Amino acid sequence: MMKTLNDLDIELLPQRKRGRLINSLSGFKSANVIGTTDGKGHHNLAMFSSVVHLGSDPALLGVVLRPPVEPEHGSHTYWNIRETGVFTINHVGSSWYEKAHQTSARYDAEESEFDAVGLHPVFRCGFEAPAVEESQVRIGLERVDEWKIPQNDCRFIVGQIRWVEFPEKAWEEDGFLDLENLEGVAMSSLDAYHSTQQLDRLSYAKKDVPLTSVKRGDTTAT
Amino acid sequence: MMKTLNDLDIELLPQRKRGRLINSLSGFKSANVIGTTDGKGHHNLAMFSSVVHLGSDPALLGVVLRPPVEPEHGSHTYWNIRETGVFTINHVGSSWYEKAHQTSARYDAEESEFDAVGLHPVFRCGFEAPAVEESQVRIGLERVDEWKIPQNDCRFIVGQIRWVEFPEKAWEEDGFLDLENLEGVAMSSLDAYHSTQQLDRLSYAKKDVPLTSVKRGDTTAT
Repeated sequence: MMKTLNDLDIELLPQRKRGRLINSLSGFKSANVIGTTDGKGHHNLAMFSSVVHLGSDPALLGVVLRPPVEPEHGSHTYWNIRETGVFTINHVGSSWYEKAHQTSARYDAEESEFDAVGLHPVFRCGFEAPAVEESQVRIGLERVDEWKIPQNDCRFIVGQIRWVEFPEKAWEEDGFLDLENLEGVAMSSLDAYHSTQQLDRLSYAKKDVPLTSVKRGDTTAT
Repeated sequence: MMKTLNDLDIELLPQRKRGRLINSLSGFKSANVIGTTDGKGHHNLAMFSSVVHLGSDPALLGVVLRPPVEPEHGSHTYWNIRETGVFTINHVGSSWYEKAHQTSARYDAEESEFDAVGLHPVFRCGFEAPAVEESQVRIGLERVDEWKIPQNDCRFIVGQIRWVEFPEKAWEEDGFLDLENLEGVAMSSLDAYHSTQQLDRLSYAKKDVPLTSVKRGDTTAT
């Protein structure tokens, strides 16, 4: 039986119940930890499920951050990005997703989440912001834009990719990166982690032409 | 062996190879079809992997659309949203993801992708925009904001949720909606579809408190 909720029904849900429901409605989400530094040697690492592709040329990713509070009260990822202009996005793996989740606890600015949860920072390409050694896909980005979402004061940070690192074996000839074989996980709602099983890769869709499977090689893909 | 690419390496990749790689870098993505109408009875349905959660109160979702071309040349989703102010987001299911993918082919404005690929429009709550009968999670949204991404002319549409519909059995008491049991799929890169397997749901993270599993009931979750 289908349940239908209108906007008033949604508004009247208890806050946490509403949060879990609405966070389910975008569908499956990326699971990433973002690494930053305050420029004084304090490293920060925090879990985000809101990284989204914005463009390939230039190579842009966006991420939604909660409304920033005063720096002494938190929002370390936000303020570090504002201060240094750079951050890393690191795909979360199935062997360490609990550690990634634990980074969302409230640690002081002087505490490194790397130390607190048992992950290891690595540095690449002269970037101040730490990446995560345990991650199979590490990306260095420079903040190029920021929007304030007027309805809730969240910030949408736009980053341009300056470097990326991944195991060569997972990079297919046509450019596809096989995240599944890199033990990447997906998220849903606020707290669920999922491994994946590829159903197929499908050819570029054209009107009146049957789709074929890229996976099995019998492809019309561009 | 790790492969490291810097921004020049990325820029020098052939366009399609770069597109497939960069589209892999955000991690797993949501798989949704967006339903719209031009207000003259022409329905449109199109595949999007860029729906992202923006907030729970008010309930907001965002979606990235390619740079619009003139209405007579395409961008039907964009122009229909501009014309009518409303659209639906429908989770793609594992039994019909090929049909969802096929909606990305180039159809004329007068052609309905519903008819072309064999999906069925349903209408809810007085909304002009069609939802998808085959979808287990259907959401009606009103456009409340739009940003132009200056680097690539893409549009980021912000929609406020006006109604949502899903099978009651999948809605857990704490608000979590079990997308996996609704045969929802995740995407990666431009053309890969994945089913999922839940690893766990984890408790709200607190400093110096071990995480527990919401799934198994032994939880400290809020």
